[in-house]
Amino acid sequence: MSDRQQFREKTAELIQEALSNNRNEVAVDVFVELHPGDQVEVFSILSENERAGLISSLDISATADLFNHQEDSETLEAAEGLSIERLADVLDEMEPDEAADLLGDLPKEQASKALQEMEDTEDVLPLLNYPDETAGGRMTTAFIFMHRAATAEQAIENLREISPDNEAPYYIFVTDQNKELVGVVGLRELVVASKDTKIDSIMASEVIFVKADTDQEDVAQVMQQYDLSALPVVDEQHQLVGIITHDDILDVLTEEATEDIYRLANVGDSELEPESDIIEQLKGRLPWLYLNSLTALFASWVISNFESLIASIAVLAVFQSVVAGQGGNAGSQSVAIIVRSLALGKISPKRIWRILTRQLLVGLLQGISVGLVVGIGVFLWKGNAFLGLVLGLALVGNMIVAAIAGTAIPLGLKAIGQDPALASSVLVTAATDSLGFLIFLGLATYFMENLL
Amino acid sequence: MSDRQQFREKTAELIQEALSNNRNEVAVDVFVELHPGDQVEVFSILSENERAGLISSLDISATADLFNHQEDSETLEAAEGLSIERLADVLDEMEPDEAADLLGDLPKEQASKALQEMEDTEDVLPLLNYPDETAGGRMTTAFIFMHRAATAEQAIENLREISPDNEAPYYIFVTDQNKELVGVVGLRELVVASKDTKIDSIMASEVIFVKADTDQEDVAQVMQQYDLSALPVVDEQHQLVGIITHDDILDVLTEEATEDIYRLANVGDSELEPESDIIEQLKGRLPWLYLNSLTALFASWVISNFESLIASIAVLAVFQSVVAGQGGNAGSQSVAIIVRSLALGKISPKRIWRILTRQLLVGLLQGISVGLVVGIGVFLWKGNAFLGLVLGLALVGNMIVAAIAGTAIPLGLKAIGQDPALASSVLVTAATDSLGFLIFLGLATYFMENLL
Repeated sequence: MSDRQQFREKTAELIQEALSNNRNEVAVDVFVELHPGDQVEVFSILSENERAGLISSLDISATADLFNHQEDSETLEAAEGLSIERLADVLDEMEPDEAADLLGDLPKEQASKALQEMEDTEDVLPLLNYPDETAGGRMTTAFIFMHRAATAEQAIENLREISPDNEAPYYIFVTDQNKELVGVVGLRELVVASKDTKIDSIMASEVIFVKADTDQEDVAQVMQQYDLSALPVVDEQHQLVGIITHDDILDVLTEEATEDIYRLANVGDSELEPESDIIEQLKGRLPWLYLNSLTALFASWVISNFESLIASIAVLAVFQSVVAGQGGNAGSQSVAIIVRSLALGKISPKRIWRILTRQLLVGLLQGISVGLVVGIGVFLWKGNAFLGLVLGLALVGNMIVAAIAGTAIPLGLKAIGQDPALASSVLVTAATDSLGFLIFLGLATYFMENLL
Repeated sequence: MSDRQQFREKTAELIQEALSNNRNEVAVDVFVELHPGDQVEVFSILSENERAGLISSLDISATADLFNHQEDSETLEAAEGLSIERLADVLDEMEPDEAADLLGDLPKEQASKALQEMEDTEDVLPLLNYPDETAGGRMTTAFIFMHRAATAEQAIENLREISPDNEAPYYIFVTDQNKELVGVVGLRELVVASKDTKIDSIMASEVIFVKADTDQEDVAQVMQQYDLSALPVVDEQHQLVGIITHDDILDVLTEEATEDIYRLANVGDSELEPESDIIEQLKGRLPWLYLNSLTALFASWVISNFESLIASIAVLAVFQSVVAGQGGNAGSQSVAIIVRSLALGKISPKRIWRILTRQLLVGLLQGISVGLVVGIGVFLWKGNAFLGLVLGLALVGNMIVAAIAGTAIPLGLKAIGQDPALASSVLVTAATDSLGFLIFLGLATYFMENLL
């Protein structure tokens, strides 16, 4: 790992030096020799100016190659600096799915001008109609298909004609006269078959496919569960319109995991990075902090009802946060387990009651375990058994609240068609904070005589 | 999606009914007709008893097939119930990497007995030496390789001899006489080459590979960055010892994401599911709650130093948690962004200072934004400008604490070779809680005259 990273950083320095000496041709020579996977990383190390300098000296096909592999946001930034003519040439050379993604990301005017300038829009246009995060938005139209009556020899001949750096994987999809998907043949079966074997006699006719409007997360689940390296995509008429390849799915899984991690931590924009533009960071983070302020102030209002109690027994203020905080922690645990299990398709609607009761039991046992230890600890510290009792009981109560809220809220969000990762943290914390304070201070009121 | 899920649940019901009527042969007939991807899901729906019943009636090869695709924990559970003889037969039929994983998970005695009973341990034994979460632990020894002097025709002939359900993908790896990796040929190039072409004239000689001890997370990054569907693994002598295929990497990405999500939420065991055994849930969750209890009690100790202040100005107890809580939220945001960027290899050690200063600036701006609004809000609510001022300033201060702790702690854990997801949440919360209370109550002490 570090070897490769060092190599990339060294190479980036070399390119930076060449660019700063206006020796762009040297920079280009070094850059084009790299594997696309390294190009992407080296390009990321360069500054915005250096990127523009390098791109201006790369030829069309090298630029297209870079854009094919580069992350969407960096491709967009580099593409916005190109002239319409050059942009159109690059788009013509790009893989159709990547070109469609870029066209979708570009400002409307630039995209439509570039489309007009492009020579070959046949592969790209159909892709523009699908939302980004669906099977249609992820698929490529560059796949290999043959009519079911073709022979093995014809199929191999067909392969010879297709450019070797085609993204299409080692499968040939088989269609009937209506272009409806009827089967799939692996290249290996094709190779070991005799020449005049008809394709439909060696194809697998039970093909797993998805519809173009399937959500990308579901697509990833299908490919993962069935161990597929390529998944055909069909339209409403069951006609084959594209394929999704294994490398697209790696990107989907990574994106979806980032989105969930960010949402669980109240970060609204899953493209944020540590060095992202400050305005972008504030846009993605601040609204959630404001929302949390509201719930925190609601919890403050709960406490304010006990102000005179606290004035006479100030030690309550010392421990009230332990109850709220531990409820919050236990709630986060439940939310993480439920959200992740939902994302991985591991929760069947039939089991929801069993899940709720089991989580409730875990919450009760956690409450007793933590409540006992913390209650006794505080009794030993402060010498007041009733303080320990109130704290311990409140911890039991709030852990139960945490278990119910931490389980029911994400499940409920999912049931009404919302992303369970999105607002679960805020809502669960609101519950464990407010009810935590209420339970603790309520119990303290009950035992007031013994606490004074 | 829901179609497929319904289909699986219907099928599971059918199998359950057959099993409960002691018509195991019907259950088996239904089960073996399923795609392996569906078998896995249907099997998961069954109860432990039903699983054992079904397995007892499946033949060796169907059992091996199921175990190949099933999740490790469920395979283990089912395998533990088999006799040594039967287990050995199933292991013989399983894919070498899956068999090695299972042997590694089984109780030591059962594993060594099964190994003795196995007929063919040649492929499995070398795999047992590698830790689970490394390239060696993930790879399979079932790959196709040829000597560089072989011809295209010989290579294709070789393919014919290999069983068609071999896991090996559509690549042939090329080695020299020392079994050192020297190149790779895609099946497509092989097919379109003339028969007597030497393999080493059509192979790509710059092969990307990893060493057997490479961490699985790094392996996933390499495969993702280079868009590979198969990655060769070499030993210290650069000899080819196995390959990792794209479907293994999907599992790695999913596991690593689950681990990070769980660790960020203080769940220590990444195999927990909502319905996991209660003892397992407590084992994975309770230690973290105890650890959090310690940091929460430390924060309580901080507050306890201000007990007499709170006794005279009880309203402070109403708002102290807002400061601690908002610090915690902002800290979680930073932790999520840093941990995820580290996991995706997006943070270069050279940029750490830039990242820290940028996060600090974001923290300051978030503090001012939230502090201003909440401070004014509380002034309007309670009619005390100084209370608003203290609260606002404390929010600014604690957001700065959150930014520094939330950035530096995960980066520091990474720098000392620890998983940044593991303890960041606890440590950051400890900082934002304790310092949050200290800043707020310290400021309140300073402005005490104005708050009374």
